[in-house]
Amino acid sequence: MKHLLSITDLGADGIAEVLRVTDSFVEVSGRSIPKVPTLRGKTVVSLFYEESTRTRLSFETAAKRLSADTMTFAVNSSSAKKGESLRDTVETIEAMGIDAVVVRHASAGVPWQVAGWVDASVVNAGDGWHEHPTQALLDCYTIRQHRPSFEGLRIAIVGDVKHSRVARSDVLAFTALGAEVTLVAPPTLLPASLAGWPVEVSDDLDTVLPKSDVVYLLRIQRERQQEALLPSLREYTARFGLTRRRARLVAEGALVMHPGPMNRGVEIAAEVAALPNSVITKQVANGVAVRMAVLFLLLGSGGSLAA
Amino acid sequence: MKHLLSITDLGADGIAEVLRVTDSFVEVSGRSIPKVPTLRGKTVVSLFYEESTRTRLSFETAAKRLSADTMTFAVNSSSAKKGESLRDTVETIEAMGIDAVVVRHASAGVPWQVAGWVDASVVNAGDGWHEHPTQALLDCYTIRQHRPSFEGLRIAIVGDVKHSRVARSDVLAFTALGAEVTLVAPPTLLPASLAGWPVEVSDDLDTVLPKSDVVYLLRIQRERQQEALLPSLREYTARFGLTRRRARLVAEGALVMHPGPMNRGVEIAAEVAALPNSVITKQVANGVAVRMAVLFLLLGSGGSLAA
Amino acid sequence: MKHLLSITDLGADGIAEVLRVTDSFVEVSGRSIPKVPTLRGKTVVSLFYEESTRTRLSFETAAKRLSADTMTFAVNSSSAKKGESLRDTVETIEAMGIDAVVVRHASAGVPWQVAGWVDASVVNAGDGWHEHPTQALLDCYTIRQHRPSFEGLRIAIVGDVKHSRVARSDVLAFTALGAEVTLVAPPTLLPASLAGWPVEVSDDLDTVLPKSDVVYLLRIQRERQQEALLPSLREYTARFGLTRRRARLVAEGALVMHPGPMNRGVEIAAEVAALPNSVITKQVANGVAVRMAVLFLLLGSGGSLAA
Repeated sequence: MKHLLSITDLGADGIAEVLRVTDSFVEVSGRSIPKVPTLRGKTVVSLFYEESTRTRLSFETAAKRLSADTMTFAVNSSSAKKGESLRDTVETIEAMGIDAVVVRHASAGVPWQVAGWVDASVVNAGDGWHEHPTQALLDCYTIRQHRPSFEGLRIAIVGDVKHSRVARSDVLAFTALGAEVTLVAPPTLLPASLAGWPVEVSDDLDTVLPKSDVVYLLRIQRERQQEALLPSLREYTARFGLTRRRARLVAEGALVMHPGPMNRGVEIAAEVAALPNSVITKQVANGVAVRMAVLFLLLGSGGSLAA
Repeated sequence: MKHLLSITDLGADGIAEVLRVTDSFVEVSGRSIPKVPTLRGKTVVSLFYEESTRTRLSFETAAKRLSADTMTFAVNSSSAKKGESLRDTVETIEAMGIDAVVVRHASAGVPWQVAGWVDASVVNAGDGWHEHPTQALLDCYTIRQHRPSFEGLRIAIVGDVKHSRVARSDVLAFTALGAEVTLVAPPTLLPASLAGWPVEVSDDLDTVLPKSDVVYLLRIQRERQQEALLPSLREYTARFGLTRRRARLVAEGALVMHPGPMNRGVEIAAEVAALPNSVITKQVANGVAVRMAVLFLLLGSGGSLAA
Repeated sequence: MKHLLSITDLGADGIAEVLRVTDSFVEVSGRSIPKVPTLRGKTVVSLFYEESTRTRLSFETAAKRLSADTMTFAVNSSSAKKGESLRDTVETIEAMGIDAVVVRHASAGVPWQVAGWVDASVVNAGDGWHEHPTQALLDCYTIRQHRPSFEGLRIAIVGDVKHSRVARSDVLAFTALGAEVTLVAPPTLLPASLAGWPVEVSDDLDTVLPKSDVVYLLRIQRERQQEALLPSLREYTARFGLTRRRARLVAEGALVMHPGPMNRGVEIAAEVAALPNSVITKQVANGVAVRMAVLFLLLGSGGSLAA
């Protein structure tokens, strides 16, 4: 494993290996000194052309717990120049002797470009509407903590699938592991074509909810309303929000998930996030351990997990 | 001690304990390698919704000297969203396994909110016009380096008391330890009500100066002039500035203090800052040791101070 | 060696010493764990009043490989206040117990001011159009990797010499070591006076190229066109750019250098950067080792280079 660019590259076996290694790092995270010397002397750079404090902090926490040095290269997308400038930046970072580059960019495909330019390992931390593989891995890990197997598991992904890299990576990961995925969204928030997506589609959340083992709510971006993709937030919530009333339709023991940050009162009711079957906070916590596993698998050949 | 939100929570005994522990860290800071492993594996996040490079660097230096990992979450107040978003941010940070959150926010009370949402320790690094407890602690420590006791010590706090969280925390701390505090300010820069403040008030600096053991100058914010709270900076300086001429009225051996950054030529003359009885630079240096003591008391149970 | 402000302070012997120490750190950088404990417990602050992610990352990587703690104080030049405020900032940083300050500022001379105010070591990371000594040192090191001696070496520096601190420091360093420097530029991009510069001047690149052992291309800033210092970028490229066609005039084995970031297609053709005799990427890599050497010489008396 040289880079982590897409869930497709990993396949079911690769996902399983990441989840297995994550177990070790969940154990490390529970120690009083949650730190191992595994990546001492390695340098991990966060190259973020799109702001995301959550994902960046999660990767940096992961790198620091592995004793790697971290540096941040947060580029204001308005000032960042395109094309060759990105290449120069990346080649410069590489020439300084960096071991891994964690890249977020508003354009799909940029992490592949970067991987073509450097010898360092590249991790895709979100590229446009395309993929966000570590989010899918932490989602898989969180589900696996609560369910013995993905085989036949019914997962509903609800909301703005069209603009969601989380949805794309999750569909790839969940179905690779054997789950059955149903996308629940208004037609305007579905991709133009779903050819090749091994999923069911519905626009009736009330019918899907009682049959789902996992309800995965996507974040609604308020600007979609200006783009006329949404009638109104109120109407969206009425039909696709996990409101307090609708939460009663969630099956006994089903998991409620969300990649954050939540629009409370829009796609999810504030109180729902506190329901016993919400695992949203666990997703965040597992995110650090999954990213430790990914960095370890990319950089840590032969390192020891002992503290 | 779980959080440090207010000087009130500490009381005289709590303040005394922090000052006692600070002695150890002043000693550590004087070593050729001023670093102890006390908080190795702990993570301290600076969550700053209001820019303050000084205070942030001071806390981060303190955390690093204790071998903690540090991360910065500097939020542009213009882009930060209110209410639930703050809660989500804080809960996300906590879910990553952070041990302490150092919070600065333009609204009074935010650190208490944050403390209600998380299990991590919370340190108030300044909330609106309300409190700034670590500043008061470093001020107490600096005075105690030069005076055997606070009992009966006469301290003048001069300037914009109304908008100063430093003044509020200092009044609470100095009076808790037995000092007698006089506020010296034009009526427009005093709080609307001083009911319950155990202080004297004066608008005549020339009379107060010769009777004071400590002269504590507050920073004047130039925008107060636009708000018509000040006649003009020149007039303010004439009546309340520690000008070169007025410095002759300072009692022999009295201390001159300022929380920084100074407006030289406004509330303080440039040369005054260099007077032998100015301890302004010592305040900054002690700030790191006091913050080490606070982080140690919050997080460091059982840690060793040996290098 | 207390500060590194100018190449002039170093002289030929000082440069030679930095290059000699750099050899050790190039060796360290090649280790699987490229880190030494030399500066453990020291704190290096980057005080950047002008953005430069490359130079900042290079210094921070260097400091971290020496096990120093690093902090960044990136000041938006639009919000930064002048004069006393800079002094207060620097004195505050010093009072926190910082060991070295790496300063970049848009005004020439600022690093000298800073050095006058503090006991910490000061490194000039670029001041206005004036000097950028660590760039010159890494350029010297890169040349020395490929040439036995500077004595009689013919170096062409091509482009916007007038606004280039790199050119100033390079001329000082290259000529101190015995090289013969020719500046190649249109008259509008040369300093008003070259009195005292021990250089030749030409505006005919085609004639100079075949006689040069090193071709050092400076970055053209596109805004010079608005200032009417350039006819057009196209015309600049035609006369002074190292185009694909013109690259054939470069002498066998001569080195092509550039301080980055490159304007591919303006002062340098995209493919030229990939020519075998381009050492542009090596310049970046050597930058980290040279800065480790500088920080070691300033702060590391008696430290050991063993890992």
